[in-house]
Amino acid sequence: MTDLYDVAAIGNAIVDVIAPSSDDFIADQALPKGGMTLIDDLRAEELYEAMAPGQEASGGSAANSMAGVASFGGRAAFIGKVGDDQLGKVFAHDIRAIGAHYDTAPLASGAATGRCLINVTPDGQRTMATFLGAANLLGPGDVDPKVIESAKITFLEGYLFTPEEARKAFAKAAGLARASDRLIALTLSAGFVVESFRETLIDFIETQVDILFANEEEITLLFQTKSFDEAVNLARPHVKIAALTCGAQGSVVIGGDESHQVAAEPIDKLVDTTGAGDAYAAGFLYGLARGRRLNVCGRLGSIAASEVISHYGARPETSLRDLAIKAGL
Amino acid sequence: MTDLYDVAAIGNAIVDVIAPSSDDFIADQALPKGGMTLIDDLRAEELYEAMAPGQEASGGSAANSMAGVASFGGRAAFIGKVGDDQLGKVFAHDIRAIGAHYDTAPLASGAATGRCLINVTPDGQRTMATFLGAANLLGPGDVDPKVIESAKITFLEGYLFTPEEARKAFAKAAGLARASDRLIALTLSAGFVVESFRETLIDFIETQVDILFANEEEITLLFQTKSFDEAVNLARPHVKIAALTCGAQGSVVIGGDESHQVAAEPIDKLVDTTGAGDAYAAGFLYGLARGRRLNVCGRLGSIAASEVISHYGARPETSLRDLAIKAGL
Repeated sequence: MTDLYDVAAIGNAIVDVIAPSSDDFIADQALPKGGMTLIDDLRAEELYEAMAPGQEASGGSAANSMAGVASFGGRAAFIGKVGDDQLGKVFAHDIRAIGAHYDTAPLASGAATGRCLINVTPDGQRTMATFLGAANLLGPGDVDPKVIESAKITFLEGYLFTPEEARKAFAKAAGLARASDRLIALTLSAGFVVESFRETLIDFIETQVDILFANEEEITLLFQTKSFDEAVNLARPHVKIAALTCGAQGSVVIGGDESHQVAAEPIDKLVDTTGAGDAYAAGFLYGLARGRRLNVCGRLGSIAASEVISHYGARPETSLRDLAIKAGL
Repeated sequence: MTDLYDVAAIGNAIVDVIAPSSDDFIADQALPKGGMTLIDDLRAEELYEAMAPGQEASGGSAANSMAGVASFGGRAAFIGKVGDDQLGKVFAHDIRAIGAHYDTAPLASGAATGRCLINVTPDGQRTMATFLGAANLLGPGDVDPKVIESAKITFLEGYLFTPEEARKAFAKAAGLARASDRLIALTLSAGFVVESFRETLIDFIETQVDILFANEEEITLLFQTKSFDEAVNLARPHVKIAALTCGAQGSVVIGGDESHQVAAEPIDKLVDTTGAGDAYAAGFLYGLARGRRLNVCGRLGSIAASEVISHYGARPETSLRDLAIKAGL
């Protein structure tokens, strides 16, 4: 198969609802500040009602990453499930309009398109509450073999480890990618994913994953240690390549004998951290697909993250390709 | 009746889809740059498909004005029709979340919530294409007498002069307001509204309207002259108060013997002119409802407009009340 795509991602198809909020509001709503909570449709209605006026924009972790890959000039594809409704049409429009391939059939009936209610506090921290809806109903039938077999890297969003049908979709995608000598990347996505599926995840990482993305919380939970440095060392024998982020401290990239400490890019003003990790993965995956060295992949990740946290919203508003060129990469 | 509201508005309930665009795109799509074009649902789908990834946010001219009144600390109410769908829920949420009263029943079946596809060119000009949908199906039954009778000013959006049922709703609202000794304000909204309903509008203004809003194009079309200054003079015998805007040149406010030239507020950078006129009306109406002098009403309008054109989107993101206080008003 020819390389049609640099990266094909499987993830939750989500529309974000982003609104400013106070710290008191986060406390009143009993939401873990800076975290992601899964909520059902009733709680979503209740929380939405209490929120400030918002802006809607396409989101979803791996989908944001594909927007980033496209912004670098890479060829991206996305697989994820929307409902047959207005927000589903918004999601499909936006991901196609950035130039990514997207043709997952909307859910014929039933659940609505998933929504992530994002409250951004004055310190730029985002607190997310997600109603998954149709996104959660992705199954192996949605994984188009032609897409996976023609992508240099298949990128799996850890959030989708939770529903069983989506895990089957991951297994199918991983099998197809392996059979076509393609690379497989996984992001752990959230602490609760690691806590719920620790053993399964370690097994999946050892047997299927070439590139692992995790933040400090996720990697320390995975290897059950309190020290980030120790987690990095514990990860080494399990993964071929790992890009482990720790917020403003930047990231550590390991692969074989290599180990790189990558600084975060300086920014003028932190506005909204939504999508920082997704953007980092975008830069790293784009670099890797284009044969760049691991430390350069890490820097491309840092550049993408710095763009996304400088404004409201999870997807780049400036060409990441231009930013990379400006940085001499 | 007690004064429950400073201003109650009747207008199109619309959700905006805002995306960056090039001048070439506007030309290719044969859209009049800087103007507003009405489109049907098929053309809306076609245009949306061709547009860049967008952000969705509640809009609608008079609804934006009510968001402005609320941002000044005023008490606002809105009457407008949405469809029974996700975007209708977004519209209702946002207008209630800003603190405005809104309880128009969504259209039980049929048309979808109206959408305004807004392409913003690098010069900050917005070019709008509107699919009215449910908004166009407002009728006299939607006008709640309790709302009109308890509002100091009833504000009518000229766009709704086009559908006959909405004109009946205007007649009902104007009758109720007059019977309760309330003020009636009208914005002409667009050149095509004036061209299509010139005689009817002049009659309506003479018999019903206390405060008229119009921009340069609209007022010169109404009085069939090429000169803005002449149009101002021709308007004088027909209106009690008129606030006539001319973009970056500011506005002229007339009322009885008074005549004021009001400068536009200086801004750092013009980002997106969407909502400038709506915001101006917000400031003016808020000032008038609170008994301020006409020149102060005009300045409050200028301050509101300057806030809205400094960022993407048609509704204020900074407290207009704070800006007014900062300006010593």
